[in-house]
Amino acid sequence: MFKFRLLVSAIALTGSMSVAAAEPLPSVAPAPADNPTTLEKVTLGKMLYHDPRLSSTGTVSCASCHNTMLGGEDNRAVAMGVNGQTGGRSAPTVWNAAFNKVQFWDGRADSLEAQAAGPVTNPIEMGMKSWDDVVARLKTIEGYQHAFEKAFGKDSISKENATKAIAAYERTLITPNSPYDKYLGGDKDAMTKQQIRGMEKAVEVGCTSCHSGPAFNGPGMFQKFPVNSNGYFEAQYHFLKDKGLAEVTKKDSDEHMWKVPTLRNVALTAPYFHNGSVKTLDRAVWLMAKLQLNKELSDGDVADIVAFLNALTGEFPTQTMPQLPATPGSTFN
Amino acid sequence: MFKFRLLVSAIALTGSMSVAAAEPLPSVAPAPADNPTTLEKVTLGKMLYHDPRLSSTGTVSCASCHNTMLGGEDNRAVAMGVNGQTGGRSAPTVWNAAFNKVQFWDGRADSLEAQAAGPVTNPIEMGMKSWDDVVARLKTIEGYQHAFEKAFGKDSISKENATKAIAAYERTLITPNSPYDKYLGGDKDAMTKQQIRGMEKAVEVGCTSCHSGPAFNGPGMFQKFPVNSNGYFEAQYHFLKDKGLAEVTKKDSDEHMWKVPTLRNVALTAPYFHNGSVKTLDRAVWLMAKLQLNKELSDGDVADIVAFLNALTGEFPTQTMPQLPATPGSTFN
Repeated sequence: MFKFRLLVSAIALTGSMSVAAAEPLPSVAPAPADNPTTLEKVTLGKMLYHDPRLSSTGTVSCASCHNTMLGGEDNRAVAMGVNGQTGGRSAPTVWNAAFNKVQFWDGRADSLEAQAAGPVTNPIEMGMKSWDDVVARLKTIEGYQHAFEKAFGKDSISKENATKAIAAYERTLITPNSPYDKYLGGDKDAMTKQQIRGMEKAVEVGCTSCHSGPAFNGPGMFQKFPVNSNGYFEAQYHFLKDKGLAEVTKKDSDEHMWKVPTLRNVALTAPYFHNGSVKTLDRAVWLMAKLQLNKELSDGDVADIVAFLNALTGEFPTQTMPQLPATPGSTFN
Repeated sequence: MFKFRLLVSAIALTGSMSVAAAEPLPSVAPAPADNPTTLEKVTLGKMLYHDPRLSSTGTVSCASCHNTMLGGEDNRAVAMGVNGQTGGRSAPTVWNAAFNKVQFWDGRADSLEAQAAGPVTNPIEMGMKSWDDVVARLKTIEGYQHAFEKAFGKDSISKENATKAIAAYERTLITPNSPYDKYLGGDKDAMTKQQIRGMEKAVEVGCTSCHSGPAFNGPGMFQKFPVNSNGYFEAQYHFLKDKGLAEVTKKDSDEHMWKVPTLRNVALTAPYFHNGSVKTLDRAVWLMAKLQLNKELSDGDVADIVAFLNALTGEFPTQTMPQLPATPGSTFN
């Protein structure tokens, strides 16, 4: 009954907005059958996620680039890993990543568990030579022996369990109760008139045909970016340097195909796009309409849509800081 | 009466241990008259302390090197700042730094406020060109305008107030109730027999003649390091490369003079000494006795003293993570 009411009101409010897009963000993320979420895993995962000792230099943790004290990323154009190295892509937000069907900008990981394994041994991110080295290092830290035992049983420090724990923690990183969610729930004052106008405009323009679903991430959807242009904007923002999915698959048909990213909390995650080349949200909105939908938005329409996007900023759960177990003298060389 | 009992029992327990050393760690740190600790300052200071946007690259916060999730430092030999740069010194712990009369290894800052100003504009630490640039950046972040207003009044974003807030937060980073403190408080089972033996040995050998006071930091005391040696250990561990206080004052008499560091939580802060060249606590203890007191400790004495030092690991207060205010698109270039 509650759900029915939501759908009806959402349709009434948003006109042509798809039913799928007009659902509030769930407050619990689904977990895979082989990694049910437990408190012990979340506790361990939070420790690992914030532990810079998972990097070669001991200075870069998952949280360094996907900062849970910020909007789940680093507010940089491209992320910076060990020894000040930079890659070509902007760190995606970890908040609500649990609602993505695929991870990374190119969607090459099909789960949070698979994603968590990647950056640790990427030479320009966390720079560990191998997961064997990570496991060996963790085994020297007595506190981790205990934390893994609680989560997975005795002598259970492994790549598989470390990434399961990190994924379990990430499934708790959800930001419900945005003004938009409250509005959908019946609180008509939760969004301003401008935000409502922007919501309607976003549907009308076509934003939500890709950015669909409760997380506005068209879960599992890949799209070509950019689609329409005369080449001017691609050159200005270097959009074509990185071939997206094709960098992984080497298929021509995957060139410039990208995962549809979430719009949840997008107001917090400047700069924008896969290479972080666009500094402001209004420019990002204008460019998306131009390049993807071949529409030139007026300044007023852009302002309205940006106002709506601000209504997608959710409530961030209060988190306690993990107390990381001590490093014995032998952990680092 | 309570204090009297403490002193009597401490003297009885520790024989020749100085009275000053036998006081438990206070649970509240003193604040200077011009910067009384307030909740609003602590809240703001915690945000600033954990905010990597106080560095040129947006990747290094105070907490990067002085990690409050760990033992208050980074478990590295020497700290790593922006763009992977390293200096010659090991990051001192921030826990209980409020009980140091001077800050930095060379003691060049006489307050937490003065210390907090340093790393932000150090080119190999946080790398900001000037505090004017820091202030300009903070002013673009609306959430900081509000947080400064609550702590210091309207339009109050400044270097002085930022460092005051950081210092106010650091004054809350205290780890009371170590086994040693509980033992002093009358709980005879709080320390093991070996730890009690180690405590007595530390006094007998002379450790506590410098590492004195409740924080075992001889507050305000400078000592020459190393004092006695045949040169072998100095060369092995590169102890003489850095001239300590003389690097600041340029005075010959200050060569190799160093602040006496706290022994609180020392079991968590490997590797050891000003250049982090000594990996384990047992080696550090042996070397200190040899180089400072000209005594060669037996393995058993070293093990006992290390056991005692483990009894100085306190209780770390549960901290919530600050939610850092959003970066507008214009914050970074």
